[in-house]
Amino acid sequence: MRADQSARRVAALRGRLVDLELDGMVVTSPENIRYLSGFSGSLGYLVIGRADAEILGDSRYWLQMEAEAPGFTLVRSGPSAGLWALVAERLKALRVPRVGFESQHLSVDQHRRLLAGVPAEQTLVATTGLIEELRIVKSVEEVELLRAVASIAGRAFDRVRSAIRPGLRERDVAFLLEQTFRELGADGPAFETIVAAGERGALPHGRASDRVLERGDMVVVDFGATAAGYHSDTTRTIVIGEPTPEQARIIEAVRQAQLASMALMKPGVAADAIDRRAREALAGEAHAFGHGLGHGIGLQVHERPFLSPTDHTALRAGMVITNEPGIYVPGWGGVRLEEMVLITEDGPEVLTSASWEIGV
Amino acid sequence: MRADQSARRVAALRGRLVDLELDGMVVTSPENIRYLSGFSGSLGYLVIGRADAEILGDSRYWLQMEAEAPGFTLVRSGPSAGLWALVAERLKALRVPRVGFESQHLSVDQHRRLLAGVPAEQTLVATTGLIEELRIVKSVEEVELLRAVASIAGRAFDRVRSAIRPGLRERDVAFLLEQTFRELGADGPAFETIVAAGERGALPHGRASDRVLERGDMVVVDFGATAAGYHSDTTRTIVIGEPTPEQARIIEAVRQAQLASMALMKPGVAADAIDRRAREALAGEAHAFGHGLGHGIGLQVHERPFLSPTDHTALRAGMVITNEPGIYVPGWGGVRLEEMVLITEDGPEVLTSASWEIGV
Repeated sequence: MRADQSARRVAALRGRLVDLELDGMVVTSPENIRYLSGFSGSLGYLVIGRADAEILGDSRYWLQMEAEAPGFTLVRSGPSAGLWALVAERLKALRVPRVGFESQHLSVDQHRRLLAGVPAEQTLVATTGLIEELRIVKSVEEVELLRAVASIAGRAFDRVRSAIRPGLRERDVAFLLEQTFRELGADGPAFETIVAAGERGALPHGRASDRVLERGDMVVVDFGATAAGYHSDTTRTIVIGEPTPEQARIIEAVRQAQLASMALMKPGVAADAIDRRAREALAGEAHAFGHGLGHGIGLQVHERPFLSPTDHTALRAGMVITNEPGIYVPGWGGVRLEEMVLITEDGPEVLTSASWEIGV
Repeated sequence: MRADQSARRVAALRGRLVDLELDGMVVTSPENIRYLSGFSGSLGYLVIGRADAEILGDSRYWLQMEAEAPGFTLVRSGPSAGLWALVAERLKALRVPRVGFESQHLSVDQHRRLLAGVPAEQTLVATTGLIEELRIVKSVEEVELLRAVASIAGRAFDRVRSAIRPGLRERDVAFLLEQTFRELGADGPAFETIVAAGERGALPHGRASDRVLERGDMVVVDFGATAAGYHSDTTRTIVIGEPTPEQARIIEAVRQAQLASMALMKPGVAADAIDRRAREALAGEAHAFGHGLGHGIGLQVHERPFLSPTDHTALRAGMVITNEPGIYVPGWGGVRLEEMVLITEDGPEVLTSASWEIGV
């Protein structure tokens, strides 16, 4: 990440630290480390002081840290000392009396280990979701990255859609999709691709299995691509052959719930109100979805805000959130439809593509 | 997972709980949940009492939990109550005064949330790695699963090896490997495949990039397949064309360090002694590896024991551990060689395959 971009994000975090009367912050969650520094490896920590921004890692990551995180000072850990002792040492050196840590990420054990090395005059303060809060509104660059992965996934689906036929297994479809993501420039799938046919469609998280697709199957396909750390997430429900009236009816019911709730996805509306709107639209259905209506998406597949009964976040322009209502009939099958929606001053903008045709 | 298999594993855990004077356990880490119950989804918790074994999840996972975890009683969580409140409620109902939780996994925030619902007469006790300790020695069934994924990865490498030529990008090689894993029956790659050519080979964790392979490049390929939750991990270093004397020399030095240390991989030998043996073998090299020599592998890619200076675990028959020494010369290139080794009463048995030929 360019040093100036990283500096802007660290400055925004420092603003939050001042509000909380903190002098520094230890950052341990990989997505937040990537957001602030650009470092994309799996092990390393950030120590941020009033003026300093350091990245700590062992020899496996030194070259990568220097290349990816030019805005941070690299502090090299030896082979056996352990990163927690080094974090404590750096906190001491930076003379920061009150230091935040990520209590939503640090395990009880890691916290204990960190605490053991910190001198008594320094206080570790639990903070939750400080950097996630910064990530909730996407920058223009981030929106472009999300648009790009959503577009790759949509084009891949349209290409693979035409190859879907009776006799293929669910996992063949997943594999074709993931292969096409790569051919179109993605790093790979954003999550384990879901292909759930017939009665398996009633499993909202049924991963692709060896089940063979048959004529008449309704199939839920939930797929996403990832590139440069950003993720997409789309769901389509298709029918192999001609949809029965009941299949067509429940797909249409879900689509109407999606459209009604999506119309509310604009600045100022509360997340839970949007979720409620979709549930109201499906109030007559015995098997309407029990999961949340949607989730923010970015460096993680699931991140704030959540369209759910318990999230009262007011939407803001620049948020990117999925909308994915469903109906799941045990023993019979399921429907889910999902879009990624960018909240703009002018209302919802759908970032995902992929054909809406039901029959294949 | 068959209910009897799951019952045996839960009984082994209860044996450990008795030793620690605990009446129950809350299990939250996905691999440990899978190990005990068979449930392979991403969200759910286990509550284990003196006689009861319950799995808690929301509607997205009910059907999958019933299908995969027949040895556990399903407790259904509603859409908004939250799983932590339900865990606390079940602990109350099971009347377990002293309950272990996984302090290496539970975050500081989750711990606080759980604590908030537990009545004063019940005590939550931090435990670290109880179930990981059970997982450290693999069952016959687990060894077969590891053997199968290691074999798939080796056959895939041999197939792809013959297609490697100047002009391909690193990520093309990674993609071909991962595609072949699937064709051979794996669920996918066990981790992000590493293909690091030329000077990029000095990055021990350099993921596959757009760098184009050239004649003369030495290339580190670190790859694994996954199926049924188990993982493989193999590394080969190859040269595009004829190796230079220096390339051949350092590859051979690493191979000798591997063979010398692998010979010690038998019951009773301490993990750190094996690590030390490999470092001694490379004592004359300026850029010998700074990372650990190896790691256990199973439901996770990296699990106990670790062949490292700080792990004093005595090896036991049934452990499966990687051996992966390396040399990393900044600006020039790197070598790493890695095998998965099953510890048997008769000594080390290499589970990984893949051609040892250097030139392609």
